[in-house]
Amino acid sequence: MIGVILIYEVTSRLFMVYEAIAASGSSPYIWAYIATALLSGLAYLFLYRVWDNVPRRFPIIHFFIVSWSALMYLSFVEGQTLFSDYVWYMDWIISTPLIVLALVLTATYKSEGSHYDLIGAAMGLQFMLIVTGIVSQDTAMSADFVGIPVAFWLGCVWLAGLIYLLWGPFKEIAEQTSHHLAQKYKILAGYISLFFALYPTAWYLSETVYPEGPAVLGAFETSLAFVILPFFCKQVYGFLDMYMIHQAGEEM
Amino acid sequence: MIGVILIYEVTSRLFMVYEAIAASGSSPYIWAYIATALLSGLAYLFLYRVWDNVPRRFPIIHFFIVSWSALMYLSFVEGQTLFSDYVWYMDWIISTPLIVLALVLTATYKSEGSHYDLIGAAMGLQFMLIVTGIVSQDTAMSADFVGIPVAFWLGCVWLAGLIYLLWGPFKEIAEQTSHHLAQKYKILAGYISLFFALYPTAWYLSETVYPEGPAVLGAFETSLAFVILPFFCKQVYGFLDMYMIHQAGEEM
Amino acid sequence: MIGVILIYEVTSRLFMVYEAIAASGSSPYIWAYIATALLSGLAYLFLYRVWDNVPRRFPIIHFFIVSWSALMYLSFVEGQTLFSDYVWYMDWIISTPLIVLALVLTATYKSEGSHYDLIGAAMGLQFMLIVTGIVSQDTAMSADFVGIPVAFWLGCVWLAGLIYLLWGPFKEIAEQTSHHLAQKYKILAGYISLFFALYPTAWYLSETVYPEGPAVLGAFETSLAFVILPFFCKQVYGFLDMYMIHQAGEEM
Repeated sequence: MIGVILIYEVTSRLFMVYEAIAASGSSPYIWAYIATALLSGLAYLFLYRVWDNVPRRFPIIHFFIVSWSALMYLSFVEGQTLFSDYVWYMDWIISTPLIVLALVLTATYKSEGSHYDLIGAAMGLQFMLIVTGIVSQDTAMSADFVGIPVAFWLGCVWLAGLIYLLWGPFKEIAEQTSHHLAQKYKILAGYISLFFALYPTAWYLSETVYPEGPAVLGAFETSLAFVILPFFCKQVYGFLDMYMIHQAGEEM
Repeated sequence: MIGVILIYEVTSRLFMVYEAIAASGSSPYIWAYIATALLSGLAYLFLYRVWDNVPRRFPIIHFFIVSWSALMYLSFVEGQTLFSDYVWYMDWIISTPLIVLALVLTATYKSEGSHYDLIGAAMGLQFMLIVTGIVSQDTAMSADFVGIPVAFWLGCVWLAGLIYLLWGPFKEIAEQTSHHLAQKYKILAGYISLFFALYPTAWYLSETVYPEGPAVLGAFETSLAFVILPFFCKQVYGFLDMYMIHQAGEEM
Repeated sequence: MIGVILIYEVTSRLFMVYEAIAASGSSPYIWAYIATALLSGLAYLFLYRVWDNVPRRFPIIHFFIVSWSALMYLSFVEGQTLFSDYVWYMDWIISTPLIVLALVLTATYKSEGSHYDLIGAAMGLQFMLIVTGIVSQDTAMSADFVGIPVAFWLGCVWLAGLIYLLWGPFKEIAEQTSHHLAQKYKILAGYISLFFALYPTAWYLSETVYPEGPAVLGAFETSLAFVILPFFCKQVYGFLDMYMIHQAGEEM
């Protein structure tokens, strides 16, 4: 409970962090993030020719995840203004439903049933989760508001629903296909769950975002965390997902 | 004709109503709306286990209709600013195409043909209808504009197109499946048509929105109307739709 | 290379052109554009009854292309403010992925394979292309930025990817269906490629957008170009596409 309150305290200040991060001298690292994102996008398309048992939709989805994220991160290093206050959310609102899509398509890609409704539900929940973040942040910024906005709690409940979908019905679908696939799917779902949980942890430890907390990370380190975490959730995840599907295909 | 002009006069002031409504002391009712929306979302998922002849996509779609609406209504009662001027439209631009989707999927759910093109056309028309509302409101607010914006008339024509689709091709598809299904579909389509028509009626009767008119409803009553009408179009409609499909399935 | 730099120099000023164009006395032409767009939308639906070998999705897609564009162009001639600074992009972000959709569906409409992944890739690339335009324009407007934003170069690379998809895999799919269809598809793809390339050319020649250049077109002529080019890319293209599909169907 206290953990949830802390997460909220911390996420509501995301807004104010943009300038500190943009000015923290982390530009070279953000450029590195953008460069690896764009190169990964190309590498997925190349790998698709090598691992020819991976369906074409996976390199395509991962290409769009890293490409969109790169385009949004450009606004940190160039003088862009339109998206800047909500640039994290503009990244996440497109890229995280696609991350969820890649994950659930991995669970279902050999299944003969039609799972459009469940896939839509998972992606819709992730989309609404990001919007609860925008509403919470916006509420927190209004002068006369005290406490935690209901939108934040709502987001927590929907997150629980998404986790249920990932570890309930989708795990089952993967298991019905093959034991091998289920194993790979569980690794990927665990990987994404872990890294998504590390985001609020990094904010909690950040001096810029949450000065009352342990304040272990300064503006520069916070900025670095925001480069390292998405690097694992997007660039590395793309390779891991395609490799797992390739492996599962070999074993079946 | 005069009716259409009145509707326009009234909708163009929607923008100015937000503050009056937010300050009218209707917060408890808006909280009730949000609470019933969230509980209905859960109830649909539960009912799906009871009425097991209802395809899974229906509880999912209705869950997203009420959840999205609840999230947007939160901005009335908490100090949110980003969406506030356009909060009705932010609600409608997602929830009303989903209401149309639930309706046309009810007509087609047992049909063997592929109706993606017609379903896309109905949802696309509803989406563009909401955007004509945004453009009309925005035009009406500009100081030097006199008269009714073309965008408003355009919206009226597209509305006629949507009504044609609902009562023409989709009714036919339902009739080809079974007489029972067509009956249920016609009840649902009539229900939605009626309540969608009650929105401008409520605005016309409102003192806040249209002071030159009968001015029967004050700020508080207008606010209440905006809670009662969507309650029937979203929360109640979800149960009605699922019940009708359940009944049609039993009878076939 | 110099050509690309010129294109950038020119597109980055698109923002400032809105007022000049809105005040250039071109309103009658913009009204003509809106009227022909709306009438074309109706004509497509009528033609679908005459050319009965054209699948229903084509008149529907073309109806939405011209309707959306008409709705966005209304903001030039009426006093609308919300979208005005980004009104071109609001038009293109919806209409150009639909233009690409109509094109690739023409290539695949008789194919028995499933091409959802490639179709999604083409539409996604076109969507991101338009967003690179928004980011570039926004960057160019910031006071302390010198040079060409990376977002612009990114857009050029993604454009190359889109052109590869159109002239590589999609041409192949059309050829596998029939020689006749491939011929028609190549005409349509060439037509769209040509007109999309004429947009930056018109800007380059415009006095308002690029005063350092040849400055052949004044504010009024530039405004006219923005009416004529989309007229060919949207209204005329819709008829051409449907006619080509009708012809290909006759010949097969």
